[in-house]
Amino acid sequence: MENIQNMSKDIVIDPWGTSYVKDYSKLIKEFGMRPFTEDIIRRLPKVHRLIKRGIIFGHRDLEIILDALEKNKEYAIMTGIKPSGPFHLGSKLTAEEFIYFQQLSNKAFGYYAIADLEAYIDNKLPLEESYKIAIDNLMDLLAMGLDPERVYVYRQSEEHSVMKLAFIFSRGVTFNTLKAIYGDRPFGLYFSALVQAGDILAPQIPERGGPKPTVVPVGADQDPHIRLTRDLAHKYQKDLGFIPPAATYHKLLRDLTGQIKMSKRNPMGILYLNESLESARRKIMNTFTGGRATAEEQKRLGGKPEVCAVFIELLSVHFVEDQKMLEEWYWDCKTGKILCGECKARAWEIIENWLKRHREKRSKMRDIAEKLLREHTLS
Amino acid sequence: MENIQNMSKDIVIDPWGTSYVKDYSKLIKEFGMRPFTEDIIRRLPKVHRLIKRGIIFGHRDLEIILDALEKNKEYAIMTGIKPSGPFHLGSKLTAEEFIYFQQLSNKAFGYYAIADLEAYIDNKLPLEESYKIAIDNLMDLLAMGLDPERVYVYRQSEEHSVMKLAFIFSRGVTFNTLKAIYGDRPFGLYFSALVQAGDILAPQIPERGGPKPTVVPVGADQDPHIRLTRDLAHKYQKDLGFIPPAATYHKLLRDLTGQIKMSKRNPMGILYLNESLESARRKIMNTFTGGRATAEEQKRLGGKPEVCAVFIELLSVHFVEDQKMLEEWYWDCKTGKILCGECKARAWEIIENWLKRHREKRSKMRDIAEKLLREHTLS
Repeated sequence: MENIQNMSKDIVIDPWGTSYVKDYSKLIKEFGMRPFTEDIIRRLPKVHRLIKRGIIFGHRDLEIILDALEKNKEYAIMTGIKPSGPFHLGSKLTAEEFIYFQQLSNKAFGYYAIADLEAYIDNKLPLEESYKIAIDNLMDLLAMGLDPERVYVYRQSEEHSVMKLAFIFSRGVTFNTLKAIYGDRPFGLYFSALVQAGDILAPQIPERGGPKPTVVPVGADQDPHIRLTRDLAHKYQKDLGFIPPAATYHKLLRDLTGQIKMSKRNPMGILYLNESLESARRKIMNTFTGGRATAEEQKRLGGKPEVCAVFIELLSVHFVEDQKMLEEWYWDCKTGKILCGECKARAWEIIENWLKRHREKRSKMRDIAEKLLREHTLS
Repeated sequence: MENIQNMSKDIVIDPWGTSYVKDYSKLIKEFGMRPFTEDIIRRLPKVHRLIKRGIIFGHRDLEIILDALEKNKEYAIMTGIKPSGPFHLGSKLTAEEFIYFQQLSNKAFGYYAIADLEAYIDNKLPLEESYKIAIDNLMDLLAMGLDPERVYVYRQSEEHSVMKLAFIFSRGVTFNTLKAIYGDRPFGLYFSALVQAGDILAPQIPERGGPKPTVVPVGADQDPHIRLTRDLAHKYQKDLGFIPPAATYHKLLRDLTGQIKMSKRNPMGILYLNESLESARRKIMNTFTGGRATAEEQKRLGGKPEVCAVFIELLSVHFVEDQKMLEEWYWDCKTGKILCGECKARAWEIIENWLKRHREKRSKMRDIAEKLLREHTLS
C-alpha cells in the first residue's frame, strides 16, 4: 500500500494495486527494460499492431526469442489468469499477445496458468466455481485463435510442479530481495510472488523438456514479478539450468470511464466480451472522450484523440487493425471533421461486429476448452 | 539463531536448532502444555512405557483422542520424517509413538509425511536419493509394527494437497504471529512452518474424509509447529472445519556422547539401526555414563544412573520394556553393585539382540515398503 501513497510521483508500479506511469521512457531507463528498437522489430517475422503503435513499448531479453525464431528452435510463452470473472478488454489484451507469440512459430509452445487458488484466497471463490469460469475464459482464448495443440493449460490447485518450485525458491530468497522489489507486504503476497516465479520457470523443468527460452507478455505493472523471476533464474541457474525469462511490456490502459484503476466496483468502465450487446453499446456511448465543451467549439478546435479512451483504448488498442484507417480517424477527430457522437456510432459498429463474430466462434469452443482443462487435471 | 544465544536460560525451544529444557514442569506452565495426569493415563487402553517413565511428559488436548477411543470413533495420527539418512534412535522414538497410537484402536489411521523437498533444499539430496532412503526408513517402521493397511505415506514432492493448504495459510498468517512463535527467521523457514501446518491439517480435508481428531507425537522442541497449526486450525475453523490437533511431547534426549544436540558431525553419538554390529558395539561401549573417577570410588559411592546415557537414553527410553528389570538395574548401579563395564556388556547383549531381531524383520519388508510409497505417487 505504501507504494501508491504518492500519486504525484511519475512512476508507481504495484503489481497488486494501482499503478501509474507518466513517462514510459523513464520507466525503461529506471528499471532497465529496453525499448522496441528498429533492430528488434526487423527481426520479428510479423509485427503486431500493439508493437507498431507503441502499446507494447518495452521488453527484456527478447533476443533469446528472436534467436529461437531465426534458428527455428522451440521456445515457451507463459501467462495466466485469475479465473474470477468473464474475459474483458484487459484479459483480451494479454490473451492476444500470448496468441501472437504462439502463432509466430510452430516451435512455440504456450503455458497458461489458471490461478484458481488465488481466486479462492482473494475472492472466496470455490474451486468448482473458478473451474467453470476457467472454461469460459478458455473459450474466449480459443475463439481468439489459441492453438489447442500447442498449449498446456493448468490450474494452480492441480499443478504440483509449480508449488514445488515456489517452495524451493522460498528458501533461496531473502527478505531484503523481496522488500527491495515489492516494498513491505504481508507474508502471503511475498509467497504469491514466488508462486508466480514458479509458474514462469516451470516450462523449463525436466518434466517439460528442460531449459528453453521463455517469453512472458505482461503489463508494465507486473514487472516486479519478472525481475524477481529473473533473479531466481540466475540464482538457480547452476542447479536447475534456468534461462532467465524474456518479457514484453504493454502500457497501462485506462478503463472506459478514463480511470487508471480498473475495478469491478465501476462496472461502466469494463467491457466484458460476453455482455449483452445492449449493455455493451451503452458502455461505448458513455466512454470517456477528448471532446470539447460544445459541438461548436469542437468543430472549430478539433477533438483531442490523444486523451480519448474511444480513440486510444477502444480503436487503437483493440478494434482497428488497419493502420491507415486508424490514422484517418485520428485526423477526422483532430480537425473537427467528426464529433464524438458520430465517432462513437462508427466505433460501436466495428465493436458490435467484432463481438458478434467472437461470440459465434466461441460458442463452438466449449468441448475443446473442457478437454484442454480435463487433460491436465492429474498432472 | 537469536533464540539459542543464551544457553544459560532454563528453556530454549528451537525447532530448527538446538533446544534445551532444564525443567519440564516449567515448560508445561509457560507454554500451556498439560502434564500426563492420572486421569489421562487411566483413560488410555494401554500405557506406553515412555508415558509410564515420564519420557512422554506432556500433551495438548489429548482428550479429543481419548474421547474417540472411548466412543470407538476414527482419529488420525500424523508424523513425518526428513529422509536424509537411515533410522537412528531418535527416529525410532517418534516411530514408536506413531505406531503406539495406531495400535490403540482399529479406527486409528496414520499419515506419514516424507519431507523429500526439505531434504532436497537443506541437504541437496536429489529426490531419487531420498526416495531410496524413504523406502529404507519405511522398512524400519514396518519392522517395528506399523500396520500398512492403516497408513497413508506420502512424499512432499508428490502431495499437492499439503502445499495447497500451506499456500492458503500463507495468506492468513501475519508476520507478527510468525515472529511471536518462531522469532526472526529467514523467509523460507516461515514457509516451511506453514507446510508443516499443512501436513498436520491435511488429514482433515474433504478428500481425506473431513474433520477428525488428530494427534501429533513430537519432541518438545517441535512445539512451535503445534502452536502455529492450532492457531491456523482455529482461524480456518469456520471455512474448513478443522479440529485443532492434539499433541504429545517427549523429552529432548541426548546423543550417546551426552551432547544435547545430535549431529551427523559427531557420528559416535548416533546409533543407526542398520549399522554393523561391530560399530554399534563400539558406540555402546563408548557411551557417556554416570561412572565415578575410579572403580574403587564407584563401588563405594555407587554410580549416577540419573545422569547416565546408558541408563536413560539406552535402557530406559529404548531397550528395556520390563519395569521391574529396569528398577533393579537402577539400584544395582546406584549401590555400586555393578560397574560401568559390566553394565555396558549387559546393555549390549540386549541391544544386539534387538538389532538382530529388528534386521531380520525388516529384511522382509522391502516389497511392502515399496508398495506403500508407490501407491500414493499420483495422489
